[in-house]
Amino acid sequence: MEIVYFEEIEVGRQRTKSPTYEVKKEEIIEFARRWDPRPFHVDEVAAASSVFGGLVACSAHIFSILSWFASRAEGRTASLAALGFDEVHIRHPVRPGDRLSCRITCLEKRESVSHHDRGIVRSRASLSNQHGEVVLSTVVTTLVAKRSR
Amino acid sequence: MEIVYFEEIEVGRQRTKSPTYEVKKEEIIEFARRWDPRPFHVDEVAAASSVFGGLVACSAHIFSILSWFASRAEGRTASLAALGFDEVHIRHPVRPGDRLSCRITCLEKRESVSHHDRGIVRSRASLSNQHGEVVLSTVVTTLVAKRSR
Repeated sequence: MEIVYFEEIEVGRQRTKSPTYEVKKEEIIEFARRWDPRPFHVDEVAAASSVFGGLVACSAHIFSILSWFASRAEGRTASLAALGFDEVHIRHPVRPGDRLSCRITCLEKRESVSHHDRGIVRSRASLSNQHGEVVLSTVVTTLVAKRSR
Repeated sequence: MEIVYFEEIEVGRQRTKSPTYEVKKEEIIEFARRWDPRPFHVDEVAAASSVFGGLVACSAHIFSILSWFASRAEGRTASLAALGFDEVHIRHPVRPGDRLSCRITCLEKRESVSHHDRGIVRSRASLSNQHGEVVLSTVVTTLVAKRSR
């Protein structure tokens, strides 16, 4: 697996992570039963009369799918730690059968002042569904290792 | 279970959710294997030489624990949908055996202009460990149902 270090991250370059991630109904229910068991995440009948009109994935599940893309897909960044996530916006519901794709664009990067072996990278990350609708977007701040240490 | 509707949410009032949540080592590894399998989340030996000096929970796991508190604990808000999370800051690592507690304070609320049966609530939510250190904080925006509909 190719690892992308701080030096190799290009500001402004958009990367599309692959493959797509299919969100299955059973997984929506199973994840939400454990972490966010509200009716519109775990009960199809109750969900039908919610504002969503049907089952939708909980926020923590969508956020976890973003982690899945960031940590596994090719061109994985040499992250040392996630520092924070700004503007985590849930723009569109995620429904059973949706196929999500992930795009990550580096917004800025700077070297660490206190540690010469790492830098801080801010990136825009988003998940879109099969209709091209953005379902989640956020600005991620990550501590990234340098190749030359 | 008591449900807190839009009308009953008091701006400025801090609520502590109970009980505490103990983060077990096995759960840290299991969660991260599925969603964020970086060495410092899944491999004790590799984690020992990471910037954390030991195993730590992944961001999606900590975020899921926040959902667990928000959805299950007493005084659950009548949420219709999560709209977004601002300033999600990972302030301190979460390690095996940590016992987390959750505080939620309403920052502001306003009625929906387009729908008379709901309102929009912004709250500061934070998780702290057994030493009183904040491990995650965020500002959550939620669509909340009114009691009178």
